[in-house]
Amino acid sequence: MDIATILGLIISFVLVVFGITFNQDLLTFEFGKLGNFIDIPSALITFGGSFMAVFAASKSAKHFIVNLKSFSLALKVLPSNEAETITTIIELSNVARKEGLLALEETANNIEDAFLKKGILLIVDGTDPELVRSILETELISIETRHKKTISFWEDLGTMGPAWGMIGTLIGLVNMLKQMDDPDSIGPSMAVALITTLYGSLLANWICAPIASKLKANNDTEIMTKEVMVEGLLSIQAGENPRVIEEKLKSFLSPSMRNEMVGENEGGEVNG
Amino acid sequence: MDIATILGLIISFVLVVFGITFNQDLLTFEFGKLGNFIDIPSALITFGGSFMAVFAASKSAKHFIVNLKSFSLALKVLPSNEAETITTIIELSNVARKEGLLALEETANNIEDAFLKKGILLIVDGTDPELVRSILETELISIETRHKKTISFWEDLGTMGPAWGMIGTLIGLVNMLKQMDDPDSIGPSMAVALITTLYGSLLANWICAPIASKLKANNDTEIMTKEVMVEGLLSIQAGENPRVIEEKLKSFLSPSMRNEMVGENEGGEVNG
Amino acid sequence: MDIATILGLIISFVLVVFGITFNQDLLTFEFGKLGNFIDIPSALITFGGSFMAVFAASKSAKHFIVNLKSFSLALKVLPSNEAETITTIIELSNVARKEGLLALEETANNIEDAFLKKGILLIVDGTDPELVRSILETELISIETRHKKTISFWEDLGTMGPAWGMIGTLIGLVNMLKQMDDPDSIGPSMAVALITTLYGSLLANWICAPIASKLKANNDTEIMTKEVMVEGLLSIQAGENPRVIEEKLKSFLSPSMRNEMVGENEGGEVNG
Amino acid sequence: MDIATILGLIISFVLVVFGITFNQDLLTFEFGKLGNFIDIPSALITFGGSFMAVFAASKSAKHFIVNLKSFSLALKVLPSNEAETITTIIELSNVARKEGLLALEETANNIEDAFLKKGILLIVDGTDPELVRSILETELISIETRHKKTISFWEDLGTMGPAWGMIGTLIGLVNMLKQMDDPDSIGPSMAVALITTLYGSLLANWICAPIASKLKANNDTEIMTKEVMVEGLLSIQAGENPRVIEEKLKSFLSPSMRNEMVGENEGGEVNG
Amino acid sequence: MDIATILGLIISFVLVVFGITFNQDLLTFEFGKLGNFIDIPSALITFGGSFMAVFAASKSAKHFIVNLKSFSLALKVLPSNEAETITTIIELSNVARKEGLLALEETANNIEDAFLKKGILLIVDGTDPELVRSILETELISIETRHKKTISFWEDLGTMGPAWGMIGTLIGLVNMLKQMDDPDSIGPSMAVALITTLYGSLLANWICAPIASKLKANNDTEIMTKEVMVEGLLSIQAGENPRVIEEKLKSFLSPSMRNEMVGENEGGEVNG
Repeated sequence: MDIATILGLIISFVLVVFGITFNQDLLTFEFGKLGNFIDIPSALITFGGSFMAVFAASKSAKHFIVNLKSFSLALKVLPSNEAETITTIIELSNVARKEGLLALEETANNIEDAFLKKGILLIVDGTDPELVRSILETELISIETRHKKTISFWEDLGTMGPAWGMIGTLIGLVNMLKQMDDPDSIGPSMAVALITTLYGSLLANWICAPIASKLKANNDTEIMTKEVMVEGLLSIQAGENPRVIEEKLKSFLSPSMRNEMVGENEGGEVNG
Repeated sequence: MDIATILGLIISFVLVVFGITFNQDLLTFEFGKLGNFIDIPSALITFGGSFMAVFAASKSAKHFIVNLKSFSLALKVLPSNEAETITTIIELSNVARKEGLLALEETANNIEDAFLKKGILLIVDGTDPELVRSILETELISIETRHKKTISFWEDLGTMGPAWGMIGTLIGLVNMLKQMDDPDSIGPSMAVALITTLYGSLLANWICAPIASKLKANNDTEIMTKEVMVEGLLSIQAGENPRVIEEKLKSFLSPSMRNEMVGENEGGEVNG
Repeated sequence: MDIATILGLIISFVLVVFGITFNQDLLTFEFGKLGNFIDIPSALITFGGSFMAVFAASKSAKHFIVNLKSFSLALKVLPSNEAETITTIIELSNVARKEGLLALEETANNIEDAFLKKGILLIVDGTDPELVRSILETELISIETRHKKTISFWEDLGTMGPAWGMIGTLIGLVNMLKQMDDPDSIGPSMAVALITTLYGSLLANWICAPIASKLKANNDTEIMTKEVMVEGLLSIQAGENPRVIEEKLKSFLSPSMRNEMVGENEGGEVNG
Repeated sequence: MDIATILGLIISFVLVVFGITFNQDLLTFEFGKLGNFIDIPSALITFGGSFMAVFAASKSAKHFIVNLKSFSLALKVLPSNEAETITTIIELSNVARKEGLLALEETANNIEDAFLKKGILLIVDGTDPELVRSILETELISIETRHKKTISFWEDLGTMGPAWGMIGTLIGLVNMLKQMDDPDSIGPSMAVALITTLYGSLLANWICAPIASKLKANNDTEIMTKEVMVEGLLSIQAGENPRVIEEKLKSFLSPSMRNEMVGENEGGEVNG
Repeated sequence: MDIATILGLIISFVLVVFGITFNQDLLTFEFGKLGNFIDIPSALITFGGSFMAVFAASKSAKHFIVNLKSFSLALKVLPSNEAETITTIIELSNVARKEGLLALEETANNIEDAFLKKGILLIVDGTDPELVRSILETELISIETRHKKTISFWEDLGTMGPAWGMIGTLIGLVNMLKQMDDPDSIGPSMAVALITTLYGSLLANWICAPIASKLKANNDTEIMTKEVMVEGLLSIQAGENPRVIEEKLKSFLSPSMRNEMVGENEGGEVNG
């Protein structure tokens, strides 16, 4: 579980509730005020309108559901990272060096990552290096294209939120301005009109912006990990020295990640 | 028919009507309020101004009509997709392997997609592979360029909507502020002034944004499908093994689409 | 004459006048209201400020005038289009095939397009194909660069409009707020303050946005037409078969344009 | 001197003063009103805040000063242009043709442009053509990178202006709203609050936007002139025919600039 | 220490305090007014919400802390610059020329920059030039990617500031409008509502925008310095003449930096 995202979403919600209910003069909480911020028609226009606009833009109802479900992906920790991948690649290169490329088939069975596994099997099959690169890079681009569509789903929803919030506010204001018989009702009517804009801003800045950014960060990590795999696999196929491969792949890492690798990897290098 | 787009457009309209008419205190609908939101001069300035600004920017009146008609394209389901295309390409490669490239001419007659058909005929004609790629890629780029013009038509209309809505609101406000003799008329006058902004926001966020996004999604699917065709056709022309072609083209697919293909395709692979 | 642009600009102006003067309750026009919207100092700040800001950003006074004159270019129909150009290229390739490259010199005299003419003369001169491509592509890029500067002139003016409109509104508001002795003058003073914002919005959305978009559409057509010429000329120089050239160049066209060509071109193909 | 930029900046300032002081009803100027628009704390927040934010973002105090001084660069006319450069290049190619590459050294002494001079000396030194291109293009990219930093200095300042203007307005509004004892002071207090937004808008749209655009236009001219030099120098080094070089370099020019060149250049071509 | 950034941040804060407290009429400071601008719930919603939204978007809590700490990086002066780097490279090339590539190992021990050191060791190890370039460029791209993530952290925080400021203002307005019993409290309530927007604007324009710009400027310098290193190292490995290397690398410098180098470098060139 990735605590940062869940924690961030919960704390910002708590802060909003605190901001609504805290009375600075009396240093008390007035939870009754939360009722001021709940309005069903406002919620229907803002959330309904935003989601329906994004639904209308979806390739199909199924794609819409899949994109919505990506919310939970933003909470997950990625199964692998660059440093671990480099360690794995170096182990593979040691196996290939000592026992030949065919020996990699067995090792591949212990690897969970489908992309790396596919790459190893292509090498074991004796596929032409150019074709291996072309297949793996096409897959890499296709993965990134799919990720970007999911990210832009949340970005689009984040744009629709304030837009439909303003539509709701305009509807509320027009209704209010047309019936100004009772001056006492102007304040509360205007409050209701503003709630849709608040809903839209929360949808955009509390949910959509963090989720889109998180999915982008996850995509960057996954793509860089897979780029490391492609470079590593092609080096193994070319029969390069494990030490050279390590030097090459470590260029992808930040200095702090490299330091972390030294401990784990020591053994691997001795075999090199 | 693609239900998502039509459903999304209808539901968001229903939600707007609901938001206008629902009385939360009495839990009743006051449909009379809908009259507050209908104003002919406001509609003429906002919709007329927006459409005329986009009309003035059109290459010709004919192009404007063609772009407007693309609204219905956004509701349509695309005739083909990546997975089906890969199945077709593998079948073609099996035919070419067993019966030679010339045998593809007959098969081409059963293919509906004009782009794939053209590609097959180029191969059958013995066109140079470089020329085949160049012709098909030029066509691909031209298709995408045309799609992007249609998409930017809806994006431009979506920018013009709120802009002309604000022009209408400013006109309404100036007229109101110049004649403030009757204080009772200020509220309703301002309501009318705000209606143009509401119209502009609805045009942008209810119609234009979803249609532009949907056309973009359709374009992405069509272009990727055609890229699969180009790659596949060139592999067939190069006489590559159907299994290798399949491996190559499947890199374009998401894991879930690949799983869907397994059933249908099984037969095809046996022939490979 | 291109009616779309002129018609669009006129109709949107008429709609603004209609929106200002129409009285929905009495179903009459009150043209006296137009006077509410004319204010010399407001016009000077908004239009003067916007134009002077763009003038200050111009390379020279001469460039500013040239860019202003491009307004009339947006109203013109382009002298040639892709389909016509392809027909011309195929005719040229037939001439070159039958009578040799030198015979093109005579044909070139009947061609109005300076770019195509220059290309033909380069070929007739026996210029190296690489150099022909390099000269024509440099010219193509230079043309597009010049067009983009003109387009961004109108875009900049369209950004300056609302910005100087807001400067005018702020000036009006500050003047009004400093002298609030007479409550009756507040309304009209504020009306005048808002007029500058209205002027700025009209400059941006009634004039600049459509003109910039139209010039962009014209540029796209001209560049694609010239790309067709470059491809065609190089194919003629390489002595390619007219039928292959036609196939290649038609990839630039939309299906509807291709259908239009069939009739005219039939003859040309028979000669091929 | 480039009159356009100075004239544009002065006239737009005059128009603002006119808009502030002109009384449309009495057709008189009330210069006393200018006092309404001078407020020291507002100026300190808006201009001080904007400049300090950009100062804080500067690489060093020295870079900040250098960037500020670029204001005067925006007023200058560039020392050379594409057409003059082409004439010079053709003269150089004639010298090189007749007297050999070494004869260029002497001619280089009469050339003011440091970039062109450096290129000639590289050629005279017998530097490898690939290295000449690499050195000149690295310099060209470095020049453009430095120009872009200066341009983005003015763009950043133009973004900070309205942002700090709004900060000032919010400060003024909060101070006003906290002390609403005297209703008569509300108007003037709000006027003062709005002055910061006016200052910010003027900084952005009167100064920064035109200066940034002008520097961009100057950069475009300088880079294109230098690209012409690189192409020309390499052609001279390759010993190409002066007429071919002229044809090649003229592709960079607009038709009107080409016509201007004909007169001056006639002589040069006779020597070719 | 880089005084520009710290000074800029401090002075703009002082100007805000001045703008809040200065009374233009009495020419006195009213520091009591600062109390108007301190509001705990407002701070919690704006700062808490902004930071939590960016926290939720972080790859992990650790990444969030690392990004926050980059604030201090924006205050630091970079350890090396282009001009110094060129001097070092030329010294290295002189050593390599006279004593051979292996002699560089000793010199490398005196070099602090880890990137340059790594490059020298790769050369000393006799690594293939293509591999040296590939390793160094991968590292360069990875460094830039990491820097860009840090920069976009501050940009995201700068976007969240005003967004959560508006959320706070909407909450304050709704609470105020729902309870308008006491007209005297309207002003102060609205003041409090606006404070969140002020907080958000300050977060964005006082802190985030300058820090993000400064980190961008630092990144540009570091990347260009490293590009100079890569070019220089490969030239040394290729055994190029120190004078040619100097000419090549100086193309990266501005004319003023080149002049600065002349003094220091004179000695180095004599040895060349």
